[in-house]
Amino acid sequence: MLIVMHHSATDEQLKSVTAAVEAMGLIAEPIPGSLRTAIGVLGNQGYVDDTSIRELPGVREVIHVSKPYKLVSRDFHPVSSVVDAGGVKFGDGHPPVLIAGPCTVESEEQMIAAARLVKKNGAQMLRGGAFKPRTGPHTFQGLGVEGLKLLRQAGDAEGLPVITEVMRIEQLETICRYADVLQVGARNMQNFDLLKEVGRSGHPVLLKRGMSSTIEEFLSAAEYIVAEGNSRVILCERGIRTFEQATRNTLDLSIVPLVRELSHLPIVVDPSHATGRRNLVGPMAKAAIVVGAHGIMIEVHPDPDRALCDGAQSLTPDGFGKLAVELKRLQSFLETL
Amino acid sequence: MLIVMHHSATDEQLKSVTAAVEAMGLIAEPIPGSLRTAIGVLGNQGYVDDTSIRELPGVREVIHVSKPYKLVSRDFHPVSSVVDAGGVKFGDGHPPVLIAGPCTVESEEQMIAAARLVKKNGAQMLRGGAFKPRTGPHTFQGLGVEGLKLLRQAGDAEGLPVITEVMRIEQLETICRYADVLQVGARNMQNFDLLKEVGRSGHPVLLKRGMSSTIEEFLSAAEYIVAEGNSRVILCERGIRTFEQATRNTLDLSIVPLVRELSHLPIVVDPSHATGRRNLVGPMAKAAIVVGAHGIMIEVHPDPDRALCDGAQSLTPDGFGKLAVELKRLQSFLETL
Amino acid sequence: MLIVMHHSATDEQLKSVTAAVEAMGLIAEPIPGSLRTAIGVLGNQGYVDDTSIRELPGVREVIHVSKPYKLVSRDFHPVSSVVDAGGVKFGDGHPPVLIAGPCTVESEEQMIAAARLVKKNGAQMLRGGAFKPRTGPHTFQGLGVEGLKLLRQAGDAEGLPVITEVMRIEQLETICRYADVLQVGARNMQNFDLLKEVGRSGHPVLLKRGMSSTIEEFLSAAEYIVAEGNSRVILCERGIRTFEQATRNTLDLSIVPLVRELSHLPIVVDPSHATGRRNLVGPMAKAAIVVGAHGIMIEVHPDPDRALCDGAQSLTPDGFGKLAVELKRLQSFLETL
Amino acid sequence: MLIVMHHSATDEQLKSVTAAVEAMGLIAEPIPGSLRTAIGVLGNQGYVDDTSIRELPGVREVIHVSKPYKLVSRDFHPVSSVVDAGGVKFGDGHPPVLIAGPCTVESEEQMIAAARLVKKNGAQMLRGGAFKPRTGPHTFQGLGVEGLKLLRQAGDAEGLPVITEVMRIEQLETICRYADVLQVGARNMQNFDLLKEVGRSGHPVLLKRGMSSTIEEFLSAAEYIVAEGNSRVILCERGIRTFEQATRNTLDLSIVPLVRELSHLPIVVDPSHATGRRNLVGPMAKAAIVVGAHGIMIEVHPDPDRALCDGAQSLTPDGFGKLAVELKRLQSFLETL
Repeated sequence: MLIVMHHSATDEQLKSVTAAVEAMGLIAEPIPGSLRTAIGVLGNQGYVDDTSIRELPGVREVIHVSKPYKLVSRDFHPVSSVVDAGGVKFGDGHPPVLIAGPCTVESEEQMIAAARLVKKNGAQMLRGGAFKPRTGPHTFQGLGVEGLKLLRQAGDAEGLPVITEVMRIEQLETICRYADVLQVGARNMQNFDLLKEVGRSGHPVLLKRGMSSTIEEFLSAAEYIVAEGNSRVILCERGIRTFEQATRNTLDLSIVPLVRELSHLPIVVDPSHATGRRNLVGPMAKAAIVVGAHGIMIEVHPDPDRALCDGAQSLTPDGFGKLAVELKRLQSFLETL
Repeated sequence: MLIVMHHSATDEQLKSVTAAVEAMGLIAEPIPGSLRTAIGVLGNQGYVDDTSIRELPGVREVIHVSKPYKLVSRDFHPVSSVVDAGGVKFGDGHPPVLIAGPCTVESEEQMIAAARLVKKNGAQMLRGGAFKPRTGPHTFQGLGVEGLKLLRQAGDAEGLPVITEVMRIEQLETICRYADVLQVGARNMQNFDLLKEVGRSGHPVLLKRGMSSTIEEFLSAAEYIVAEGNSRVILCERGIRTFEQATRNTLDLSIVPLVRELSHLPIVVDPSHATGRRNLVGPMAKAAIVVGAHGIMIEVHPDPDRALCDGAQSLTPDGFGKLAVELKRLQSFLETL
Repeated sequence: MLIVMHHSATDEQLKSVTAAVEAMGLIAEPIPGSLRTAIGVLGNQGYVDDTSIRELPGVREVIHVSKPYKLVSRDFHPVSSVVDAGGVKFGDGHPPVLIAGPCTVESEEQMIAAARLVKKNGAQMLRGGAFKPRTGPHTFQGLGVEGLKLLRQAGDAEGLPVITEVMRIEQLETICRYADVLQVGARNMQNFDLLKEVGRSGHPVLLKRGMSSTIEEFLSAAEYIVAEGNSRVILCERGIRTFEQATRNTLDLSIVPLVRELSHLPIVVDPSHATGRRNLVGPMAKAAIVVGAHGIMIEVHPDPDRALCDGAQSLTPDGFGKLAVELKRLQSFLETL
Repeated sequence: MLIVMHHSATDEQLKSVTAAVEAMGLIAEPIPGSLRTAIGVLGNQGYVDDTSIRELPGVREVIHVSKPYKLVSRDFHPVSSVVDAGGVKFGDGHPPVLIAGPCTVESEEQMIAAARLVKKNGAQMLRGGAFKPRTGPHTFQGLGVEGLKLLRQAGDAEGLPVITEVMRIEQLETICRYADVLQVGARNMQNFDLLKEVGRSGHPVLLKRGMSSTIEEFLSAAEYIVAEGNSRVILCERGIRTFEQATRNTLDLSIVPLVRELSHLPIVVDPSHATGRRNLVGPMAKAAIVVGAHGIMIEVHPDPDRALCDGAQSLTPDGFGKLAVELKRLQSFLETL
């Protein structure tokens, strides 16, 4: 931590800041500059709460060097983690995993068709929402437990592990019974109690980046899960909010190589929610593979024009089949690069 | 709803869109333009799910006229609501309510001193966090139920109703026992299950705007609570995330007159979290009164330099006393304007 | 400047960073921490270009303590500046200046009516655009030099100094002949060549904040003007871009007390462009006075429903008259606070 | 255009809006809904200025269907344009163009070395800044005309066309003498006078997207150039501002397929400025090729650790050589996909 003093700070103010640092059991090292003095703080084991420092007289700014996350950081865990989720492996040394399925579980027929489609095209995991977060209360909110059963049944029929979103702690036990992987959605990325319980469950988790969160906040959210002893966390970039109105969100692909540098956790990309437009899903999925994503999560619907939710961003069966082939060929090519 | 067709859409495409609209039980009225045709959709009772329309061949764009909220809107409820929360009234015709107290409940001594300070300076409600949302898990997370008891006890000692944040559904029953008003924080504004349960509780709620949410999303979140039969909702602007790094968030005061136009619910302003800097709290609190806020929520600490949390934005006892007087005088003046 | 080394940086890397700092004529002071070493850089007279440091092996981050601006900063010029612009004074110790007029100069009749309205209600400066920046080329772009003449003539008729926007360097000489104050618009805040020439002109300047600029960038833009020897710069907050669609921009009032702390230059507020909605202009103008703005710039049109540009945000003559009285009464009240 | 009336709008208000539309020579077609009436506006030939409508009593919202751009749109020009810039072709049917070179022209030696490097690795165009936009005035601003000469000389030595940034109209004639392609930077994307003059020059232009601009604004800026009769415009995505602090900007790759759908103009990607970090340039450049960019613009420096500007994002000669080979191989592979 670095404490930058005001240009006009007095010696007395400098002394009282030094004293406050030392009262925290830390070491204060003054660094006099031509215009102002800064005070380096040494001896801390991690992020320091600067509350008692920040507004002392004469202090202009407090600059943090340590990050609020630690367990998920590559500094503390240099070797890349491989997460086993329902028998499927996410991480370095494994080809990118293709997760696919409809936005929402709608019916047995739909899920059976979806699972067949997913399996036939070589995807390794089936997705489908049973509990749906919707901006307003007057929209379809998902089939609930019935949806979970249909998802499980469809996955079992094709031998596919399944992933579904958990929105509240009380659902956790039930969802863990039916799903191989828990998804925590963007709106819940800072629902810290949910993160803790998901951590305690020990179940593999796919954590989506919050709609306007920074990488630091994203990794700090993952830290909540890992701090409970659950290191089976898969990060997921799904687009961030920007001023652009032409796409649903803006997919931030540069986060992939950056997270691979800062953290040992695997990261996958969801181009369907990010773009919200069917014709952008393919190009962005391929780009995600190229930047090093450990997996791709795609919405596909046996009949997207009749989907109850997000049909506009769901691929058709044909479109999905074509993309799955292209992703596989691209991946093979990249291995030769 | 308005469906805008592509420049080059064929008659057949137009027909199939018309058919899809009619299949939803609605009326399609074509509006031919010089460059393209649009189709007006009539007969809906509220927001229409456009999933089965948006990606039909020939469709360029779907424009919504209805909003995803209804119960909280002034269109449907033209008279301003007055919310009674622990005996204090928020809404038109009542002077703005001053809510004050520390960010976090730390000790009996601190809370007793805080409550006395709050009461003495004429504030009408005591705030204090027992469960704290923190970006990283390695920071102080609040005293929990013990904190609730200290808050209640301090409020009772001074005859002040109390408000505290609820972060998870399981805490709800307990918190309802101790607190007069439930606060839903910015990070949970789209924790829809929490909103529903808070709605079912029937308890007065102060709902904070999400960190990067629009007014439409904010009012839709309130709609979740009201849709469960609980209309005692107080909205709270607490700053939104922008590129500015010099303040914690950017307080959006224009939302106050705008919400007063769009909704019948009362709205209060929290300048402490919005700015994150003690010396900006006073000016922004006064500005909030001027734009018509129904209340102000301020952090004050008996000894801010020793606060466990957010000391940098907490007012000192003296600063708070001075501001409380100024707010009252300003309010009296505004009534003569 | 503080150079933060990687956790795993070697002694050799540390040495070569130290050498690079010393090659710049500066002093490197290592600050060993428990997890990593940082290097304090001393001896610089201002902002240091970190290009040759930032990507040296072992460097994780470079943190700047100095700001890229200096002349506009209160550190270097502690006394508040008062800017005399066409005989009107902006700054501490002077009541806030009311600048008013139409968005665009349209006709002699309109300008004469506008100037009369502005004068009658006690405003001190007349505004009107002759050259208009418009998002697309197929919209009215202003009357040009003819507009300048009408503006000047209307100002002279009522004894009001006038302000108008300059968009290109070639216009500068002409505009300086007709206008008392040059306005640099938000889209040109980082048109550095224009800033330099405006600086060289020596004419008073009102510099609008860029649409998504930070305070640091805003003050750095002002630095360009002052660095050319022209210190008659008035800053102007006019709203920043956020996700909110319900208002044109989001007026950031907290910048006013913050700029007053960081800089000696005066700052005014434009609530018309910021909100884009007539009924929000009044509340936000009053709030701007309360937070300490040195002036308010308001759009008023003799007949806003027939305005060629931005009529929706222009006040009517009656609305303006009422607001002008309220602002004056509010200002008198604030002096007693 | 669609005019949405308030829930409570009276018949009289409806009539006066209808009259206002007809006064503009357009047709008003009422669309009565269950809750409110909307009015479709027909007969316009493009974007309608809504000033005289938006604030009429009873109007709640005005929704635009037409876009502010036309000439650059694919609706009006369905065939993709190929832009010939200094003999190099950008557009469909041509392999992506590799533009490379240093951020800034520093010396003859540096430029000769850079040009050799660029040529040797198969890039087709040389970049280098002679006039540099810098946030603060106290930083190196470029060599000016001397820099232009060095750039031209280095390009000629290797038979490479050259591109450089133009920041002000007075430089235009000189720059046109030395450079094959004019670059308009992100900060000047809405410097409309510069756009017009660049349009009049008839010279090929590479137009960078503004830091927080939408696609609509970006295409509208290009419209300014094309409206002057210059259709040799190459669009360039260079990252937009988001909350993320870990990268300089956020590269928005989804704009590439989207612009290809909305416009006939070619689009290239600049991963160097977008990310600001050398190790992200390669992955993002490859991803840009995959999503269909018509070119890539990359910063490379013979000795990046000694660069006067943006060294941290410049590739080393070795890194560039490796990337150039990979891009070529990737492109060959994509042609087989």
